[in-house]
Amino acid sequence: MSVTRPTGFRAAGATAGLKASGRPDVALVVNDGPEHVAAAVFTSNRVQAAPVLWSRQAVADGRLDAVILNSGGANACTGHQGFQDTHATAEKVADLLGISAGDVAVCSTGLIGELLPMAKLLSGCEAVATSLSADGGPAAAEAIMTTDTVSKQASFRATGWSVGGMAKGAGMLAPGLATMLVVLTTDAIVSAAQLEAALRTATRLTFDRVDSDGCMSTNDTVIALASGASGIPVPDHAIERALTEVCADLAMQLVRDAEGAAHDIRIDVVSAATESDALTVARSIARNNLFKCAIFGGDPNWGRILAAVGTTDAAFDPATIDVAINGILVCRAGGVGDDRTLVDLSPREVHIVVHLKSGDAAATVWTNDLTHDYVHENSAYST
Amino acid sequence: MSVTRPTGFRAAGATAGLKASGRPDVALVVNDGPEHVAAAVFTSNRVQAAPVLWSRQAVADGRLDAVILNSGGANACTGHQGFQDTHATAEKVADLLGISAGDVAVCSTGLIGELLPMAKLLSGCEAVATSLSADGGPAAAEAIMTTDTVSKQASFRATGWSVGGMAKGAGMLAPGLATMLVVLTTDAIVSAAQLEAALRTATRLTFDRVDSDGCMSTNDTVIALASGASGIPVPDHAIERALTEVCADLAMQLVRDAEGAAHDIRIDVVSAATESDALTVARSIARNNLFKCAIFGGDPNWGRILAAVGTTDAAFDPATIDVAINGILVCRAGGVGDDRTLVDLSPREVHIVVHLKSGDAAATVWTNDLTHDYVHENSAYST
Repeated sequence: MSVTRPTGFRAAGATAGLKASGRPDVALVVNDGPEHVAAAVFTSNRVQAAPVLWSRQAVADGRLDAVILNSGGANACTGHQGFQDTHATAEKVADLLGISAGDVAVCSTGLIGELLPMAKLLSGCEAVATSLSADGGPAAAEAIMTTDTVSKQASFRATGWSVGGMAKGAGMLAPGLATMLVVLTTDAIVSAAQLEAALRTATRLTFDRVDSDGCMSTNDTVIALASGASGIPVPDHAIERALTEVCADLAMQLVRDAEGAAHDIRIDVVSAATESDALTVARSIARNNLFKCAIFGGDPNWGRILAAVGTTDAAFDPATIDVAINGILVCRAGGVGDDRTLVDLSPREVHIVVHLKSGDAAATVWTNDLTHDYVHENSAYST
Repeated sequence: MSVTRPTGFRAAGATAGLKASGRPDVALVVNDGPEHVAAAVFTSNRVQAAPVLWSRQAVADGRLDAVILNSGGANACTGHQGFQDTHATAEKVADLLGISAGDVAVCSTGLIGELLPMAKLLSGCEAVATSLSADGGPAAAEAIMTTDTVSKQASFRATGWSVGGMAKGAGMLAPGLATMLVVLTTDAIVSAAQLEAALRTATRLTFDRVDSDGCMSTNDTVIALASGASGIPVPDHAIERALTEVCADLAMQLVRDAEGAAHDIRIDVVSAATESDALTVARSIARNNLFKCAIFGGDPNWGRILAAVGTTDAAFDPATIDVAINGILVCRAGGVGDDRTLVDLSPREVHIVVHLKSGDAAATVWTNDLTHDYVHENSAYST
């Protein structure tokens, strides 16, 4: 499990005192090589946190030696001082490890709009640098949690090589990417171009299809590191499949631990004219607060699904669309279908299927219901 | 006040038994002329309720003699039977009043996806037709309430003529239009083209700028009726101003009574490159659940505003944007501004100002916070 599953990696977590809770808040993942191949994808939000701006530059040459991560503060909307703080963090880690600051990615998560307490953070860097170990993955995964209730780790094992990963993410989960920090590791021998292509495919089909609350973060980052320590060169399709499996596993862990959620909702839009149409419809449903409240209330209120579909420009005929909730075809041909009281919404997993009857394309989006606990957690988060 | 404020109109409300609560649920507004000019705007949702489909046809010739409205059922996603039910309702009212069914608009509001109990509704039509009176506006306004806690009425008085209006709307408030039913009346002499143009301008600047929960209904309808009973011809700008004032008044009543809301939030986006940019940014903020939860929690979490702005394609520089909450400039030049603890969020009214610093355009959107009561009301609505 986790980022130290593949050979060639060490990791650690420590408590720097950034969080009021006193829980671990600094993590470090180091690639000991022999190779130091890296790729990353970042939030598509135009307001980007200082660590995103820094890490985008750091990974541009396809090489990273280490990733330093902190919870307890996003270092977003913090101006020049925020960027200098990120730079200083990378320099500190580089000094401690005897590497170049330009090969250190920085990730931060927490409240937007406050400067990080740098003395504490730099002390935390020292703590993690001196406690690195080949089984430090779980400690690193724990140190990046914010409102997560459990740490998220996953791995994929092939013959002679493997992929590991850790993630944090609980609120602000929406595409482009879903809001989160993710570090993936592999000991396969892959080129930077291979890793980049595989990572883009993997995130497009996994994290990008998670839309817990429609809110896109300023700090989303997914970084993949390849050490080559297995000595095994791996073809494109193999690394793509391995990364996709690990990302899918982590994405489902994010959904299951979304802030305050009582239901995990899988929305399949099928028989769409295009995948883009299917995705547009699935996202529109996933972002409809009335629908999400209804699911929380155990109410198979399919009219709210139809109303959400109707706001899109996807190809469909309101007079032929079908909708099933947990296997009951509650809407048939755009009208009243089977008895809605037959729908059982007591399980945590809810399955919506929308039949657009306009083609052969399909897409799936995962979301959560809208609950009292979501409101509670997000109205009290920064205070 | 209300739709019977102008001369030439009668109205009534009655209880047909469509609502479990036993409260009034059928309303009728009749234009006694001498003129019968009408205009209407409808939801832009592609899934449109049967009464919307019917009324769009009825008003196409610029004439309506009456509007029959019911709460307790939306008659949306009800297929051919639903349309036949709407047709039967119009025929019944036409018979009772001795007019043509093609001059009767029908509006319905309530749960989507269930057929109306027609025997009850047709009895209700008889009840309202026999109780029509020149001071029946308030009774009609009460009969169209669903989860509204108060009825909504407004009026505008000019020299010798006036405009009156009533509205219902509490949940599913989002543009295109905001979700609601509205009937406006005037005794001015105006042409159908004048009334249509004035109504489009009025709704664009009022109801279309209300976005309580981002959810667009299948039943939104705003109908304007002109009796000409004042004998006074009115120029374009005068009818436009009068309709806009009444619509703005009703729109603010909708915001103040939005389901479960604890705060009314005015979002001004200023110094935008275009009005469209300003509107896009304002809507993005208005639909951000995390921001809306923060306001509910009394937390001036401006980072969530920046994150919402960053998801748009509006012209702005993340390094220069300013944000004020209730007069405190919490974000200056994209970074930390004045002390956020100075912001007082205890009043119900909250004022957000976003300075994009990209031009001279501006737009305002009204929304509400996201509260426990919103989740409660919308998870229990149909059960």
